[in-house]
Amino acid sequence: MADKEEISNRDKALFEAGIKLGALYHQFIGTPVSTETVEELEKTIERSVSLQPWISSVEVKIDREKVRKCEKKNKFEYCELSGEMLDVKVVVRYEAVEAHARVKYEAEMDYPFMRVEKVHASKK
Amino acid sequence: MADKEEISNRDKALFEAGIKLGALYHQFIGTPVSTETVEELEKTIERSVSLQPWISSVEVKIDREKVRKCEKKNKFEYCELSGEMLDVKVVVRYEAVEAHARVKYEAEMDYPFMRVEKVHASKK
Amino acid sequence: MADKEEISNRDKALFEAGIKLGALYHQFIGTPVSTETVEELEKTIERSVSLQPWISSVEVKIDREKVRKCEKKNKFEYCELSGEMLDVKVVVRYEAVEAHARVKYEAEMDYPFMRVEKVHASKK
Amino acid sequence: MADKEEISNRDKALFEAGIKLGALYHQFIGTPVSTETVEELEKTIERSVSLQPWISSVEVKIDREKVRKCEKKNKFEYCELSGEMLDVKVVVRYEAVEAHARVKYEAEMDYPFMRVEKVHASKK
Repeated sequence: MADKEEISNRDKALFEAGIKLGALYHQFIGTPVSTETVEELEKTIERSVSLQPWISSVEVKIDREKVRKCEKKNKFEYCELSGEMLDVKVVVRYEAVEAHARVKYEAEMDYPFMRVEKVHASKK
Repeated sequence: MADKEEISNRDKALFEAGIKLGALYHQFIGTPVSTETVEELEKTIERSVSLQPWISSVEVKIDREKVRKCEKKNKFEYCELSGEMLDVKVVVRYEAVEAHARVKYEAEMDYPFMRVEKVHASKK
Repeated sequence: MADKEEISNRDKALFEAGIKLGALYHQFIGTPVSTETVEELEKTIERSVSLQPWISSVEVKIDREKVRKCEKKNKFEYCELSGEMLDVKVVVRYEAVEAHARVKYEAEMDYPFMRVEKVHASKK
Repeated sequence: MADKEEISNRDKALFEAGIKLGALYHQFIGTPVSTETVEELEKTIERSVSLQPWISSVEVKIDREKVRKCEKKNKFEYCELSGEMLDVKVVVRYEAVEAHARVKYEAEMDYPFMRVEKVHASKK
């Protein structure tokens, strides 16, 4: 039996969820942001990621407290979007499978950890 | 006389204008975009660049015709923002000097050409 | 039974493979490249991606013919790394599972398609 | 008198120096790096930036001490290249003018400050 046929919809849903998180992280990290633009930037990232195939939903939260802190420290009163500020949840639906994944900074690891939160058969 | 003192406000205005164009180009190229999200993406780039020091104004235009074309060709009906689609004007004011610069794709060169359009004493 | 426990090593291997491809694509697209620097850039991308968790191997090929063509068209004789030029294979090992994934431009789709090529129990 | 003719070679040299710093910063920030790959990454950034027009020289230094520290803190023993780690000098020659510029993190500002260090008539 060929390897290709062994790859399930579940496999593909998880693969695609990983792609989306890796992509958005490296696309948007470094973007100038402030407390005034943070909400707009969240929406733009959400809408941009939503264009990609098999995305069912995206929710982007940028930590306002961290933005505020770095604005204050920074001479020019703005920040660069960094992994520490991000909390993003994506839901990918590939055929009958739904994968829920998330990237969120974990202070103990000093790492923007990407994890699968749930995989299940899609209700639809 | 030290070199440092010889650097004028005009020099700095031009340097800063270059920084802004180089930065936004390499930050936002690759962002997923479609005819539905293009306007929002323009605004987000404008607002993000406006946070940076000495920016007086930013105007971002993404070529809708090129976005439409690549949407049609692309199996998943969206595009990546590319240099060919961009036309961005920035105005930097450094003390009494205003520098107007622009990045715009030039088909003959096959290049997103960055140029200084105008430098003058600021009216204010 | 909690959802969390249902996530298998196979799921995680595929998720991680997706992360790596999404990340490298959006990190390196836009990098200036020429026929003289292409080999070095391939190695740097490989070594950089190899630092990330659970990577077993990475192989980056940048299409020299496409680099040559765009060098010739471009007034300044260099290119920006684009999705069209890339062919990258990653192997992720998560515990006893190995996932092989690849991003390669598909002309018919006009898309840098990311796919799972193989998933199997690791030999080790 | 037209504005266009008033733009001097000195103006252009400074503008181009700004472009280079802004571009490389936003292109390479976020790249995975470790003490083992740091030297190679420096060379690749130098060679890549050198392809761009009017570049006379580029010198990239990534702070090994900061890389070492974040490797230790990070669960997976690698870092993302960040503005804090960078010290880059570029020399742009535009016709008879040479502009020397630098981006270097300034702790007091918490900012990767970009500055013009010197502008002078080119010796050649």
